[in-house]
Amino acid sequence: MNLDAEQLRALAAVLEEGTFEAAAARLHVTPSAVSQRVRALEQRVGQVLVVRSRPCRATEPGAVLARLAGQVALLERDAAAELAGAGHDEAAGAPTRLAVAVNADSLSSWFPAALVGLPEGVVVDLRREDQDRTAELLRDGTVTAAVTAQAHAVQGCRVRPLGAMRYLGLVAPAVRDRWFPDGVTAAALERAPVLAFNRADTLQHRFAAALVGRDVAPPVHHVPSNTAFLELLAAGLGWGMASEAAAADALATGALVDVAPGRWLDVPLYWQHWSLRTPTLDDLTARVVRAASTSLR
Amino acid sequence: MNLDAEQLRALAAVLEEGTFEAAAARLHVTPSAVSQRVRALEQRVGQVLVVRSRPCRATEPGAVLARLAGQVALLERDAAAELAGAGHDEAAGAPTRLAVAVNADSLSSWFPAALVGLPEGVVVDLRREDQDRTAELLRDGTVTAAVTAQAHAVQGCRVRPLGAMRYLGLVAPAVRDRWFPDGVTAAALERAPVLAFNRADTLQHRFAAALVGRDVAPPVHHVPSNTAFLELLAAGLGWGMASEAAAADALATGALVDVAPGRWLDVPLYWQHWSLRTPTLDDLTARVVRAASTSLR
Repeated sequence: MNLDAEQLRALAAVLEEGTFEAAAARLHVTPSAVSQRVRALEQRVGQVLVVRSRPCRATEPGAVLARLAGQVALLERDAAAELAGAGHDEAAGAPTRLAVAVNADSLSSWFPAALVGLPEGVVVDLRREDQDRTAELLRDGTVTAAVTAQAHAVQGCRVRPLGAMRYLGLVAPAVRDRWFPDGVTAAALERAPVLAFNRADTLQHRFAAALVGRDVAPPVHHVPSNTAFLELLAAGLGWGMASEAAAADALATGALVDVAPGRWLDVPLYWQHWSLRTPTLDDLTARVVRAASTSLR
Repeated sequence: MNLDAEQLRALAAVLEEGTFEAAAARLHVTPSAVSQRVRALEQRVGQVLVVRSRPCRATEPGAVLARLAGQVALLERDAAAELAGAGHDEAAGAPTRLAVAVNADSLSSWFPAALVGLPEGVVVDLRREDQDRTAELLRDGTVTAAVTAQAHAVQGCRVRPLGAMRYLGLVAPAVRDRWFPDGVTAAALERAPVLAFNRADTLQHRFAAALVGRDVAPPVHHVPSNTAFLELLAAGLGWGMASEAAAADALATGALVDVAPGRWLDVPLYWQHWSLRTPTLDDLTARVVRAASTSLR
């Protein structure tokens, strides 16, 4: 099946940018030109490719073609850079765009180190995503790679282990004295307020269940910012889990203490990426593996 | 129109939690009981209330009823607390849940101070949301209040100004020397890489346009974490805007400098909340206004 490259690029831009208008701005054409190209591609393959919602989303066949478009773009840009001779410089034209989904804790701790000294001509499009959404973004071609706790390879992707992030149960000393005078008993864990990052964050629940051997259902605050999370733990809003790296300063000053000394949760992280070899993607993989190896267990 | 309180609670839980299963877990009933209640309510009002997607979303009439349900719940809980005599204590039963949307920069800087010493029996459900989504969440009853740059009151809400957050254009010294040897010219701003928080973040674009009097279209990295954003600015990935509070340390150490000394963007912030007087909501408003007044201009 021969597909029109311009139509594929229009499809990918709509799904990446979320609207026909934003896709048009990126491609330097009118929204109606984008719309025509996507419609033409839909007629060519005989299937609806884009759900016209806000933001636009891929249908199943749309996801297959969006990913194809992204892979072709990556290969084309690397080939252009090679032809230009000087690596990824201005001669290669538009910058190579690497879309990567990263879980929030990695993004606010070890992941940025992987991007230090990134070659000019490469731009990163990071997405802070929960677990369950990562696989979908890889499948539908929205992202090229992901840092995720999901060990099972998404179809068409390679996966490699990065090491484990260690999470500690943390609490301000005053909160420990108020809610846990007898330690982390089931009764105390049932009543003491907990901080969770958001609804998808089950770390606290798993840790508590592991400590006392059954599920507990305490009052839960949702605080979806790593900075705010640590600040509100220290301010005594409740107990919660943070990575040992994020908690190091607060533990050193005594602002936070272990709620259950000697206990922790290790969460293994994985690098999933399209099974496609290009210099840009290989370089990113090497950077991510290196940064992870200095911070994860 | 008399509406069944249990059915309203089921509707609100489905929209807040996103799935019938999670709503059932919160209400301690089976998913099929939740489904029956929502269906019964839909038959009662003769309209579809919930789009059965993942996550579930409110239709227009669903949003009206979800907000009603949230308002009734807030009033009921405060009344129960008053009856119990001792304020928001365990006698009042389930904790009072305050869902609040907060823009990312506020959430990682001044907003947590508003929650220090929050009364027991109140749990916060914070959502880090972009501008354009905040109004929708207020309208459909998903959040009770929001910190937002939107000055225009959402229907049924009150709005009050909180002050302005000042943003500076920041860059690592080496990046300034490399890309801006002649200062922030239009040609330099067209080529120098930029960091933006995500696609909804137009600060950098507006700042550059204000500096040179026309739009520029440089290569853009998207870095949706305040911690990672500052770290990658300092590592030299590009220039970008950060609030003066967030940038203070890096400016003091010289890790970052002003890309255009003496220029900034002031973004006024507003507190929007349901126009409903309850002690819990009044207390939250007072806390937010107080925290904002010590940090914003």
